[in-house]
Amino acid sequence: MNLSLLTDFYELTMAGGYLKNGRENRTACFDMFFRKVPDRGGFGIMAGLEQLVDELEHLSFSHDDIDYLRSLSLFDEAFLQYLSNFRFSCDVWAVPEGTPIFPMEPIVTVVGPVAQAQLIETLLLITINYQSLVATKANRIVRATQGRPVLEYGARRAHGASAAVYGARAAYIAGCAGTSCTLAGKRFGIPVTGTMAHSWVQNFDTELEAFEAYARQFPQNCVLLVDTYNTLQSGVPNAIKAFDSVVVPAGFRPRAIRIDSGDITYLSKKARRMLDEAGYPDCEIIASNSVDEYIIRDLFIEGARVDMFGVGERLITASSDPVFGGVYKLSALADETGTLQPRIKLSDNVSKVTIPCRKQVWRLFDRHTGKALADVVTKFDEVVDDRGDYEIFDPDHTWKRKTVTDFIARPMLHPVMQDGKCVYGRPSIEEIRAYAAEQNATLWDEVCRLENPHAYYVDLSAPLWEERDRLLKKHAL
Amino acid sequence: MNLSLLTDFYELTMAGGYLKNGRENRTACFDMFFRKVPDRGGFGIMAGLEQLVDELEHLSFSHDDIDYLRSLSLFDEAFLQYLSNFRFSCDVWAVPEGTPIFPMEPIVTVVGPVAQAQLIETLLLITINYQSLVATKANRIVRATQGRPVLEYGARRAHGASAAVYGARAAYIAGCAGTSCTLAGKRFGIPVTGTMAHSWVQNFDTELEAFEAYARQFPQNCVLLVDTYNTLQSGVPNAIKAFDSVVVPAGFRPRAIRIDSGDITYLSKKARRMLDEAGYPDCEIIASNSVDEYIIRDLFIEGARVDMFGVGERLITASSDPVFGGVYKLSALADETGTLQPRIKLSDNVSKVTIPCRKQVWRLFDRHTGKALADVVTKFDEVVDDRGDYEIFDPDHTWKRKTVTDFIARPMLHPVMQDGKCVYGRPSIEEIRAYAAEQNATLWDEVCRLENPHAYYVDLSAPLWEERDRLLKKHAL
Repeated sequence: MNLSLLTDFYELTMAGGYLKNGRENRTACFDMFFRKVPDRGGFGIMAGLEQLVDELEHLSFSHDDIDYLRSLSLFDEAFLQYLSNFRFSCDVWAVPEGTPIFPMEPIVTVVGPVAQAQLIETLLLITINYQSLVATKANRIVRATQGRPVLEYGARRAHGASAAVYGARAAYIAGCAGTSCTLAGKRFGIPVTGTMAHSWVQNFDTELEAFEAYARQFPQNCVLLVDTYNTLQSGVPNAIKAFDSVVVPAGFRPRAIRIDSGDITYLSKKARRMLDEAGYPDCEIIASNSVDEYIIRDLFIEGARVDMFGVGERLITASSDPVFGGVYKLSALADETGTLQPRIKLSDNVSKVTIPCRKQVWRLFDRHTGKALADVVTKFDEVVDDRGDYEIFDPDHTWKRKTVTDFIARPMLHPVMQDGKCVYGRPSIEEIRAYAAEQNATLWDEVCRLENPHAYYVDLSAPLWEERDRLLKKHAL
Repeated sequence: MNLSLLTDFYELTMAGGYLKNGRENRTACFDMFFRKVPDRGGFGIMAGLEQLVDELEHLSFSHDDIDYLRSLSLFDEAFLQYLSNFRFSCDVWAVPEGTPIFPMEPIVTVVGPVAQAQLIETLLLITINYQSLVATKANRIVRATQGRPVLEYGARRAHGASAAVYGARAAYIAGCAGTSCTLAGKRFGIPVTGTMAHSWVQNFDTELEAFEAYARQFPQNCVLLVDTYNTLQSGVPNAIKAFDSVVVPAGFRPRAIRIDSGDITYLSKKARRMLDEAGYPDCEIIASNSVDEYIIRDLFIEGARVDMFGVGERLITASSDPVFGGVYKLSALADETGTLQPRIKLSDNVSKVTIPCRKQVWRLFDRHTGKALADVVTKFDEVVDDRGDYEIFDPDHTWKRKTVTDFIARPMLHPVMQDGKCVYGRPSIEEIRAYAAEQNATLWDEVCRLENPHAYYVDLSAPLWEERDRLLKKHAL
């Protein structure tokens, strides 16, 4: 599917308008940022950048596309010609995939001809929003299991093919151990897992026959689904029989049983005891019945004996809060001399007021603990000097101030495209996953709390705050 | 993207297992059905069938796919060879797109070699689940606007590219009037709409200048976004000035203003009065600030003056209940003589018990009003004779009985593929949309209520109920 027309129609009417007004090549700066963390969490996880860069590098409008647009009788030939020759030539800066991200700070910045930077809005948002949504949710679920592996099992409930494939990627980046989605396994090298459905069991005259047939085929990796008829009275006893009669004689140990319905706490405790008594204390229990971070937390409070989770619809759709509300807003525009001038958007909803100027984000880490202390959004050419003290302040309540000492300041936005060409190292998925885990460890536990987390500081530098204040006063009526 | 590997990995391990056990060509019957309507609504809307048939007709495994599977060291060469030669040859019956559908009744039935019917499970579910989810949600939103057009504006928050494109299709089938997603417009001929974002306004030194520039370009279809700075003090007055200075002198009437933030009820009432007083009572007001069926209902209770809605994330992600939980279960399997024998799956969750046998669904319509009275799920070869009376009964509470008289019975499952070839007429999207509206009109208002709707009857025929009862007693321990 060529995604060049995966754009809201107004990007085209606006681009056409810029051309008509001779403004299409004015340099503009757009920021992508988000306003709230899904599930009222403490932070999001950045994901989707690699796919964004891939799409932008290959953006072009086919004859078919142009013919379709012409058929709408809204665009003049000059604009259609412009699209025929389109090549993306902006600079793109972004926060690396796997980074914890916070509301209101830019996570992607696009600088270049305004018509181009405008045209890619929808494609950019759809790509980063969805993968960041799933990465953020997966991170919550993985944290809730206290070290037990989480497998992404959601393909059948994903919102279409690209959701299944890229959702599996985002989940893996954020710490899942594998996926059931074979295509994602092939595309990204993610470990794929899966054994049997209820239909396998139903295909045989008895459950035991079904288990034994499966065990004969995969004795080295024997996972049996035990809830087709009755988990405790038939499923687990038959699984034990198949382990006894096939797996152990073949020289292997059983891998696991899987419970997909019923009360997981009750069933897992009973099943654990049955497996232990049968001599299989090393046989794991996988639970895959509609779980998420909240249910997992409660299962352990109740003493559930689950070793691994298969998480489906609640992960791949982030069902408790399925929107990552990233937006893309103009923050600066070149004047006639080519100098970028700050732009602001006001709103009756105060939270929708934008931050003007091309910007950089600095993360301040404690030099001794390595923990992240605060983010400071600055003008692009500011440097946060970490050789001395640095005063941060709340941009809404400016009397709330704090002096940070003994810290390391790191810029978070890095160049990923220059003049439309990829200029970053494209880390492997394993590198991204390791980086995500490492960066997650820089956050205080208080920020990681699933509910009502501590609000991490995202402040504005004094020069940026003053610029915003000036524009607010200029435009407020 | 070749979607043949868009399959949960266990479909492959099971298919490999069927082959190993010489069972791959046994005829099996699988049903897709769902267990609950999203948002506790009264019914779902079937969608996605055309894309499913397209994919199934072209299902094949490439050399790349086979090489990937071989690299996992889990499958033997006989199975990889089987996949290399794979061609889908099952029969598929389905409820037509646009049909109101109810829990627990089959909406797609697949009959054919068990390994094939198994392999397509994930692809089938992902395709029907997502489009039916969005169609169901769009139907609710469209009903809430009391005839005012709804535009689908969600691409940027959709869960990836295929969600944006196929979600727009599903929304249109269910009654939306258009989409902002240009690619969906091109693919399916859906009307595309869109005018300007806030960035257009920010691109000019003043809001008035931005409006006038836009109006000069599109005087025939001038829609102005009025909330970049201050809706009532700047946006609407400037829009009126641009209508006066550009649109009317060019010989046109203004089309609309769009409000994208703030309190829609308050702002739309005030804006309506301002437009009326300026001589533009025909200028419409479009609202596009995070709305759904609940907010729309409340807006009209409060007297909002909105003529058209742009609905984004809450439609395309069905955010209030983003999972259409369709499942795919084995209901019959051929014995050694080739005769289909019913199969059941039990569960500790009573709602997860399946209905055995290959089946048909009959919808009973009142002969005089045309209204749908009940659905009856029967064995495949049963005929519901509508020349006399017919007694229906609640399958869980069998003492609840009702005699239906003077009705027309229509079978709902129709053949769409035979031996893997498409055999249905592939109605156009406009035909599907018209059929959906017509079928929706057969439902009683009570079933259409947004909250706490009347539960439509989905009953089992006596022969089917008896078969299920027999198998329940056989397997219950």
